[in-house]
Amino acid sequence: MTDTANCRPVDAAEVGHWDLEADVVVAGFGVAGAAAAVEAARSGADVLVLERTGGWGGAASQAGGFVYLGGGTALQRALGFDDTPANMEKFLLAALGPGADRAKIADYAENSVAHYDWLVGCGVRFREAFWDQPGWEPPHDEGLMYSGGENAAPFNAIATPAPRGHVPQMANKQTGAKGGGYMLMKPLTDTAAALGVRAEYDIRIRRLVVDDGRVVGVLATRFGAPVAVRARRGVVLATGSFAYNTTMVENFAPLLVGRPGAAIEEHDGTAIRMAQALGADLSHMDATEVAFFGDPQLLARGILVNGRGQRFVPEDTYPGRIGQMTLLHNENQAYLIIDEQALEAASATETATPFFRVPPTWAAESIAELEADMGLPELALQTTVQTYNHHAKTGTDPLFGKKPEWLEPIGTPVAGFDLRGRTAGFTLGGLRTDLDSRVLHVNGEPIAGLFAAGRCTAGLCAGGYVSGASLGDGSFFGRRAGAAAAHADTDEGQ
Amino acid sequence: MTDTANCRPVDAAEVGHWDLEADVVVAGFGVAGAAAAVEAARSGADVLVLERTGGWGGAASQAGGFVYLGGGTALQRALGFDDTPANMEKFLLAALGPGADRAKIADYAENSVAHYDWLVGCGVRFREAFWDQPGWEPPHDEGLMYSGGENAAPFNAIATPAPRGHVPQMANKQTGAKGGGYMLMKPLTDTAAALGVRAEYDIRIRRLVVDDGRVVGVLATRFGAPVAVRARRGVVLATGSFAYNTTMVENFAPLLVGRPGAAIEEHDGTAIRMAQALGADLSHMDATEVAFFGDPQLLARGILVNGRGQRFVPEDTYPGRIGQMTLLHNENQAYLIIDEQALEAASATETATPFFRVPPTWAAESIAELEADMGLPELALQTTVQTYNHHAKTGTDPLFGKKPEWLEPIGTPVAGFDLRGRTAGFTLGGLRTDLDSRVLHVNGEPIAGLFAAGRCTAGLCAGGYVSGASLGDGSFFGRRAGAAAAHADTDEGQ
Repeated sequence: MTDTANCRPVDAAEVGHWDLEADVVVAGFGVAGAAAAVEAARSGADVLVLERTGGWGGAASQAGGFVYLGGGTALQRALGFDDTPANMEKFLLAALGPGADRAKIADYAENSVAHYDWLVGCGVRFREAFWDQPGWEPPHDEGLMYSGGENAAPFNAIATPAPRGHVPQMANKQTGAKGGGYMLMKPLTDTAAALGVRAEYDIRIRRLVVDDGRVVGVLATRFGAPVAVRARRGVVLATGSFAYNTTMVENFAPLLVGRPGAAIEEHDGTAIRMAQALGADLSHMDATEVAFFGDPQLLARGILVNGRGQRFVPEDTYPGRIGQMTLLHNENQAYLIIDEQALEAASATETATPFFRVPPTWAAESIAELEADMGLPELALQTTVQTYNHHAKTGTDPLFGKKPEWLEPIGTPVAGFDLRGRTAGFTLGGLRTDLDSRVLHVNGEPIAGLFAAGRCTAGLCAGGYVSGASLGDGSFFGRRAGAAAAHADTDEGQ
Repeated sequence: MTDTANCRPVDAAEVGHWDLEADVVVAGFGVAGAAAAVEAARSGADVLVLERTGGWGGAASQAGGFVYLGGGTALQRALGFDDTPANMEKFLLAALGPGADRAKIADYAENSVAHYDWLVGCGVRFREAFWDQPGWEPPHDEGLMYSGGENAAPFNAIATPAPRGHVPQMANKQTGAKGGGYMLMKPLTDTAAALGVRAEYDIRIRRLVVDDGRVVGVLATRFGAPVAVRARRGVVLATGSFAYNTTMVENFAPLLVGRPGAAIEEHDGTAIRMAQALGADLSHMDATEVAFFGDPQLLARGILVNGRGQRFVPEDTYPGRIGQMTLLHNENQAYLIIDEQALEAASATETATPFFRVPPTWAAESIAELEADMGLPELALQTTVQTYNHHAKTGTDPLFGKKPEWLEPIGTPVAGFDLRGRTAGFTLGGLRTDLDSRVLHVNGEPIAGLFAAGRCTAGLCAGGYVSGASLGDGSFFGRRAGAAAAHADTDEGQ
């Protein structure tokens, strides 16, 4: 665990000498930090990025690269999908709650098309190809995919389904050379560099420096040696989630203890602690993204049951939703039941996700036999399959709304996959910020000179999640943070 | 909503004049505040309680009065129940997690017998009578009852069941004169008064006063006029939960929006905000107690199903657990299915909880008919009942572990009760404190001069709850707060 002990703010009067200085100081060179740096520089500010590791990228560069965008982006339109900001907003309100920040969602939906154009303007490329299969990510370099269950129940009855997972074109996904996350971060950081943004690496921020209630810099360390950094206009915190801070995870999101995923070890909550020490407010600290390590092609063709043999989710939905339902509501218990025919069909398709494939745990000639082999109570699984098959025959799933294309009665022979505990995730809660990414004090007012974006903040998501929401709100509100910091009125104190 | 805008700490140098002064200043005269006041006074401190309303009592005096105690209290022993601190700890760890504070639970279990004796020593009376029925509270003035599902699955297989819901003897429950909560608060506040504790009413605390990092007082208002109160040794925050602060509930526990329960309107999170403004840490802000408004006598005799006709809880468990499972994990959807014979048996017993009784929503001659009347998908309810009955015949419930005494196949005619949305609750998260009730800064160190207890803190509970945990940890850690504040070393600054 990282030492977060000394996170109290320091009075500027105690800082004898500034080692580094800029108008806007950005902590963290992941997607939020890069977007903030670009926008601050374009707003005329002299920008310095402090990055804890030896290079730019953060968790973003290791991610699949989904950016959740919609409302009618150029890519959506080119591929024949209708979408509007209102439709996107309706979906996000349903999928990201309860408790999701309505103002942020409305803002994000309204300005999503422009944000797509901004990314393209920074050199991010999206190939005009749609991947129409269930899965975590497109297998090749397709630019668009459903990434949040928009086309699955219950959301397909709430808003018109539109794919919004925008994936930067990969350099060479087949050889594994560079993924979508890298292809997002490379042009963003190149853009920042071209704008004169300076970056200093191996620097860990530790404490905020405050002058009469206004944040005017940070104290950091570089290989243990102190570095005082002055921010003439503002500090932008963009250092990621707290998924790797065990104490914080225990205190706020205990179901995630022992299973951090899609985060990097530097995600230790440092920035959250530093801002809290100044009275910053928090939001949705229990919220978590949850990945589910199962092949969506298999899931859609079978049924998922919990430890009592009960179904609990439409199996053809966004796998992150399956992950949340499994970990948060079904004691991390999930079993896949699929018949031989469907298993073969899933295996034969080139749309499978091979790295999530495991051999069946059980194989049986009847559901009763499988139920017994799995150690489930008598009739528990049999009655679940009976009800499912009764409706699947007519192409309906009144319990969960799985789409007709995936509905087929479960026959025999039949296999069972033990998928218990196959979840991992990262935290979604963090600092409470406004639409200009100003960090809010518990009194509701912005803390002068302090801005934040990315997963050290509570962004669009509360209870739910969609893939691309973090790179999405990180870059979107990162830009806001950069612009707001560059324009910050330095006369405005506490 | 209460104005929490001006919650920033104030420097002592800015306070020109102290209107009131004491060694230990306690904010809030509910159970935590009263216990803190008594213990601080017994430790030799001059104590002043600031209470926002016109009288002592808080939410505690309106509660049923359960204090969760065990490990072999005099009352447990007198009534023939074996219990040990280790057994109590084992149960609490299973029932109050995940993420529950292990150190607090161990401490609480270890010192629970002594805490019972302390309450009795303060004049709280517990009648030596055990109420053995499922329910929310004893119907008369019985002193002991199961209040957390100790004798139900899954906990009865984890720890030896022992009743730990200790109820102060009611003055006259039959006439509704005075309930258990009042009979807890009356002797505690009488004890405080006898010890010379002063109390000032109609005073709302607003801001903490700080001198070189140490809390030395509070700024308050009385009917709008400012009141500065000096605390020579320490301030104890004991102003209750944030169940009535809509913004906080939306940001931290959104499933509770619109359904505060067993809280009072003064529970607006004021103390939490004031301490946060000083860098205090939080814990388990999403955790909620959830009451379920259904008669446990009916529930135990029927089955509860969610909106898809699936069972989701052992129906004979603590109703607060049913509430949590309903609201937090089953979209607040619950239907009770019970046959005529069981309904009559439940109604005939004097153990029923009449005020939770509603007439059946549906009555039918068969499960199939009831299923259709309820609008459930075909076979959804029929298969659930089929599985339940198959095992109930043999006196087992392998899915949820309902006890044999409540297991009877569901026959016909059969009734359905629509119990959707019949939940309400209060928040369990709050300030992070140590075993001496010192409020912890985000850097992990105690904030000098600041103590807290009761529901403005995260106490024993995280994900789970047991009735009596709040009056229990409120009084237990309230005492710790009072003692620690009285002994606080005033030389110890930041």
